[in-house]
Amino acid sequence: MNKDIILTGDRTTGQLHLGHYVGSLRSRVQLQDEYKTYILLADVQALTTHYDQPGMIADSVHQVTLDYLAVGIDPNKATLFIQSMIPEIAELTVIFSMFITVNSLRHNPTIKNEARDRGYKDLYYGFLGYPVSQAADIAFCKATLVPAGEDQIPHIETARKLVRRFNELYAPVLPEPRILTGERLGGLDGLGKMSKSMGNAISLNALPDDVHAKLARAKTDPARIHRSDPGHPDICPVFAYHQLFRKEEAAEIHASCSNGTIGCKDCKKIAGTAINELLSPFRERRNYYEQRGYEVKEILVEGTRQAQRAARETMLEVREAMGIRYFD
Amino acid sequence: MNKDIILTGDRTTGQLHLGHYVGSLRSRVQLQDEYKTYILLADVQALTTHYDQPGMIADSVHQVTLDYLAVGIDPNKATLFIQSMIPEIAELTVIFSMFITVNSLRHNPTIKNEARDRGYKDLYYGFLGYPVSQAADIAFCKATLVPAGEDQIPHIETARKLVRRFNELYAPVLPEPRILTGERLGGLDGLGKMSKSMGNAISLNALPDDVHAKLARAKTDPARIHRSDPGHPDICPVFAYHQLFRKEEAAEIHASCSNGTIGCKDCKKIAGTAINELLSPFRERRNYYEQRGYEVKEILVEGTRQAQRAARETMLEVREAMGIRYFD
Ligand code: SF4
Ligand code: SF4
Repeated sequence: MNKDIILTGDRTTGQLHLGHYVGSLRSRVQLQDEYKTYILLADVQALTTHYDQPGMIADSVHQVTLDYLAVGIDPNKATLFIQSMIPEIAELTVIFSMFITVNSLRHNPTIKNEARDRGYKDLYYGFLGYPVSQAADIAFCKATLVPAGEDQIPHIETARKLVRRFNELYAPVLPEPRILTGERLGGLDGLGKMSKSMGNAISLNALPDDVHAKLARAKTDPARIHRSDPGHPDICPVFAYHQLFRKEEAAEIHASCSNGTIGCKDCKKIAGTAINELLSPFRERRNYYEQRGYEVKEILVEGTRQAQRAARETMLEVREAMGIRYFD
Repeated sequence: MNKDIILTGDRTTGQLHLGHYVGSLRSRVQLQDEYKTYILLADVQALTTHYDQPGMIADSVHQVTLDYLAVGIDPNKATLFIQSMIPEIAELTVIFSMFITVNSLRHNPTIKNEARDRGYKDLYYGFLGYPVSQAADIAFCKATLVPAGEDQIPHIETARKLVRRFNELYAPVLPEPRILTGERLGGLDGLGKMSKSMGNAISLNALPDDVHAKLARAKTDPARIHRSDPGHPDICPVFAYHQLFRKEEAAEIHASCSNGTIGCKDCKKIAGTAINELLSPFRERRNYYEQRGYEVKEILVEGTRQAQRAARETMLEVREAMGIRYFD
């Protein structure tokens, strides 16, 4: 087994969708065979933007866990755990808070973009510190590899700086994490990436008819009015799905679309069928676990216990290094 | 016993001095008989300004504990505990971070003043959030009364707001704390309050000769050149000590100084003797505990265990209220 340790996870603010699958879940399923993998159900981080919807967050912890199990995350390989149950993450957040200035957080481009996207005029303190707590998520289990989107590069850079600062000041206890960037899936509207809040997403638990209905409403090349109009598949969000989910046959669609020998309706049907083939085993596994709530809970209990053990060990080393290990 | 719960404490950045005694320790010794009292050794908060001196902080935890025991804090009445050993304080800090904006922290006058005093051009994230973690210090043990200096009023106001916000959003779990302001002791230089960093302080463990030597160098009324010059005791820092430590006889000194019938040297001797009378039992108790390191450690272990139990109970209620109590 590779000696790298992976930390990955999702904010628990709703179910996951195909964008999550392509961007990270797919590779997590592969990575869990090679690496010690921690998967974080980030309920505390969900609070930074959804603190006024506590019921939703707890429900979402359950739903996201089902999504993970559905796509093939194996609880015997990966450690699934709940962020709010690891107090050491909060402790490391507080410690790391000493090593970074307000201005450098303000200049973090991802924080800036997210604040703008959410229309925040006035930044919340916890929201501004989100890269700091993310660094703590990574550090508590000594993760070295973080699979994430490119928008996360500045956060990982912050995590590296904070860890380096800690190691310089005290002792070399925490490893510097590296990012492992995944693919990116466009939304059904052709406007930016797939995102639940944009309403352009296909949920991982969508039913077959839903998938086709969603695709039927998807944007295509606006130049195609008649079936015989030559299309530009490279600018069509539906073609992107062909490339991702029907790789082998994508060239064929590219030709038929460019020649005007396939209609968008048929093309979308084919894409929808491919997506449904992908989702079909997910639906079965989800169904299995949906009927076994107790088993799902046990998976979370066991994973969280494992993460707690790792957290305790790291925190003892952290206290030792800082000279604040008074007694155990 | 009164039903109020007191939270008080000190940053562990060095030994305590007479200013601490007059400002808070004296009243703590009285209050411990009437109230459930938690006394925080704030080593994490010390890190916000002294993160590069970890050895000093741990040493200071020991020294401040000796100061407490020396002045008469009774470990059978008050609960002495170490902040870094209560992870729930960090957890509450992270939760409270969601409820307050960066701007409202920036406009906190005490944060502004302290940042200016320390010459901080660029504010550290943890330093800016210091009222947030102070609110967590207060909330974890459900303290209702916080004995503190007037400069702490804005922080307590922030704590009240955060607690109110929590209670509104989730459930009325946390009490709103009130401040209990103490007296203020001027420094030996007559320039502002007694403070170790200003070099105008008398340590609680100063030896008798030290006390006299420190007073000998103290500023007095600059109008008094000759013994017979009439003085202005109300502007003299030494007279303030008479008022605090020789209350009964202070009027007499006031008269002799105003008439020019006492010299500053003699006046200082009298003040020094009074201070030494106050410090004498402190020295004895400190001496007792200095020779019993194990007993001091046991006091901290036991107090910290007690605080941990209170923290666990509060945090269960907090999780329950927020809907994130998944399993225990
Ligand atoms: S045929 Fe397919 S690839 Fe071409 S524009 Fe229509 S949906 Fe897009
Ligand atoms: S006599 Fe005492 S009170 Fe008067 S100026 Fe001198 S030191 Fe101060």
